[in-house]
Amino acid sequence: MCNIHYGQSKISHCNHLYYKGRPLYAYLKKSAIEKNLSFLKEKLKGSSSHTKVWATVKANAYGHGLMKVLPALSQADGIAVLDLKEAIKCQNFGWNKPIMVYGGLYAPSEIPLLFKVPNIHLVISHLAQLDWLKNSPILESQTLTSCTLWLRYHGDTHHCGFNEIDYQDAYNRAAELLSKRLINGIGHFNHYACAENRKSINDSEITFNNLIKRLPGETSTGNSAALLLYPEHCKDTNWVRPGLALYGASPIPYLSAETLGLEPAMSLHSELIAIQYLSAGDKVGYGGTFIASKDMKIGLISCGYGDGYPRHASTGTPILVDSTKTQLLGKVSMDISVVDLTRIPKAKIGTPVTLWGTCDLPVEEVAAAAGTIAAELFTRLSTEVQIIQYD
Amino acid sequence: MCNIHYGQSKISHCNHLYYKGRPLYAYLKKSAIEKNLSFLKEKLKGSSSHTKVWATVKANAYGHGLMKVLPALSQADGIAVLDLKEAIKCQNFGWNKPIMVYGGLYAPSEIPLLFKVPNIHLVISHLAQLDWLKNSPILESQTLTSCTLWLRYHGDTHHCGFNEIDYQDAYNRAAELLSKRLINGIGHFNHYACAENRKSINDSEITFNNLIKRLPGETSTGNSAALLLYPEHCKDTNWVRPGLALYGASPIPYLSAETLGLEPAMSLHSELIAIQYLSAGDKVGYGGTFIASKDMKIGLISCGYGDGYPRHASTGTPILVDSTKTQLLGKVSMDISVVDLTRIPKAKIGTPVTLWGTCDLPVEEVAAAAGTIAAELFTRLSTEVQIIQYD
Repeated sequence: MCNIHYGQSKISHCNHLYYKGRPLYAYLKKSAIEKNLSFLKEKLKGSSSHTKVWATVKANAYGHGLMKVLPALSQADGIAVLDLKEAIKCQNFGWNKPIMVYGGLYAPSEIPLLFKVPNIHLVISHLAQLDWLKNSPILESQTLTSCTLWLRYHGDTHHCGFNEIDYQDAYNRAAELLSKRLINGIGHFNHYACAENRKSINDSEITFNNLIKRLPGETSTGNSAALLLYPEHCKDTNWVRPGLALYGASPIPYLSAETLGLEPAMSLHSELIAIQYLSAGDKVGYGGTFIASKDMKIGLISCGYGDGYPRHASTGTPILVDSTKTQLLGKVSMDISVVDLTRIPKAKIGTPVTLWGTCDLPVEEVAAAAGTIAAELFTRLSTEVQIIQYD
Repeated sequence: MCNIHYGQSKISHCNHLYYKGRPLYAYLKKSAIEKNLSFLKEKLKGSSSHTKVWATVKANAYGHGLMKVLPALSQADGIAVLDLKEAIKCQNFGWNKPIMVYGGLYAPSEIPLLFKVPNIHLVISHLAQLDWLKNSPILESQTLTSCTLWLRYHGDTHHCGFNEIDYQDAYNRAAELLSKRLINGIGHFNHYACAENRKSINDSEITFNNLIKRLPGETSTGNSAALLLYPEHCKDTNWVRPGLALYGASPIPYLSAETLGLEPAMSLHSELIAIQYLSAGDKVGYGGTFIASKDMKIGLISCGYGDGYPRHASTGTPILVDSTKTQLLGKVSMDISVVDLTRIPKAKIGTPVTLWGTCDLPVEEVAAAAGTIAAELFTRLSTEVQIIQYD
């Protein structure tokens, strides 16, 4: 699946203007997102509910760049964002299919924005949001004919959403808005705290299904992990909501993206910007946390925590230099990291470096070494890092 | 020193347009940066070397927003950035005093940019950079009459810069450029690995001074920590280079910013966006890492790792709700965090929350709880978070 080799020679193939200054850039493979979406949709084939897909693009498409990612999602039935500001941005970028807004409304002052986005699906997580709609003077004169409200069950996250008692109350209030034709429809939304655990999903679904059994409306459950591990289970819902898997990263700690059949869409690259030779006993970087046990060759990379590479990545974190796996040394600085060149004698200034995101160095592997998850590395990538579209 | 109380009521005092959507914003107090700079300059008074200040603004002014920060630095003798792209940005924002470029040149193709920035100070860390200049066809026809080269000693970081042997070679090559009047001057640059340790600084300086004793040129040593702890020591150099201290955060793990006399310039704020009630035994968030030991009230905050709040912040991380210190619960999600409201019964939707950066909740305290430093929290703040200028 992974047949692409990145490096200097490839840069000239990019249609994008490449300014040869500080060497730090991300590659984005749009076709990987298309493939991942198609792969996930394939899993839902034969669903009696004709399960549809909300492709989650919140947080600037998980840091991949919303404007670049949206065209790769044309086969999705809808997209999901966090707030109305993001929804309007998607619309401005040309998206004209349904948009789900996970955060719903944050204040009554957002209600006028609802008229700007046709086919909007608001997730409702607490009663005040329904009151804001009910009491809105704007909604007395105009109706939101293309707005659907999705009531969120707090599920096993005990996080956003209604408990069992309030859910019925919320439904009644939403139904009142519907009966007055102020909104277009009502749906039912559940989210899993431990989607990689079958029993946990089942327990959550039993409670959820019990809760909504007498309430009409479409359902939406199932994130990336549920869809990859338990596709049959996801065929019972009307809408699934993959996020991370679209970008080709595994949402399941014990399974690699490759094993799951996903292709990474974004990778982070730099070059060696200097070479140093250490004598045994020399300390490296702030605080001198790495001490050379022998004479050794090291390289400096123009990437640090200020660029979005995690400062929690310490000595031993894997990194590729000229396609050879080696390790980080010492503390990551704001704009520089140090790499062990012991086994890469030919490395010199300009030698390409991969920090994360290819099949040879999955983002999950680097994330785990830094004690976190792929989604954090994606979303914290500095917007100063140029994303070069590969295809 | 810290007499400002943030919160909803203050928003109306800001001259900035405040869109009341998802509640997440940073406050920037420009006067704090001015004060910190003035405080640091005061420490250098009476210096026989007339020590000057490079105010470090790399990484978008440590995440504070370059354009907003530059006007607060008008009393600095120069500013320091990472690369020429940043230098040109500063110039476009109106900065017309000297600019130091820590990264120097990344490739020969950057040389034409040097002509665009008058009064540029390039830090030179390896011999190839000098070769690029020497062999540049552009420099045969034009001279960089306002460009100074600063030779960087690798010091005790064993990181960027020359070792003792190469330093003399570098000086000779730079001197050749100077003798041909291709550049304007040569300076000497050292950086400390452990600036909070007096002996470590002294050892580094002895080697450095020994290295340059027969070489003419100004010197630049001393970062925030050295300047705060050992100002007398810094009076011997021609230029110091504070960074973190300008923004009001302590660079010294065992001393608070307040103790040092610094005022925080930026703070991160949100609001409660929902309230939940847990029963004993309920698990919260992804993976259910927090389990309620009793019935309790919790709040949701519209801030997560996708916004730049660290995912390493776990249960117990301090946070202010309505000015009362409480704790984070469970795992930080991409755009939501959970807070303990046990001792804040009046908390409701819209109650103000401070995530870090005020005197009551120093950024260093939250950084330490997440196993990192203030500079990482500053620089990873998402550019989607609106920075509201307070004064």
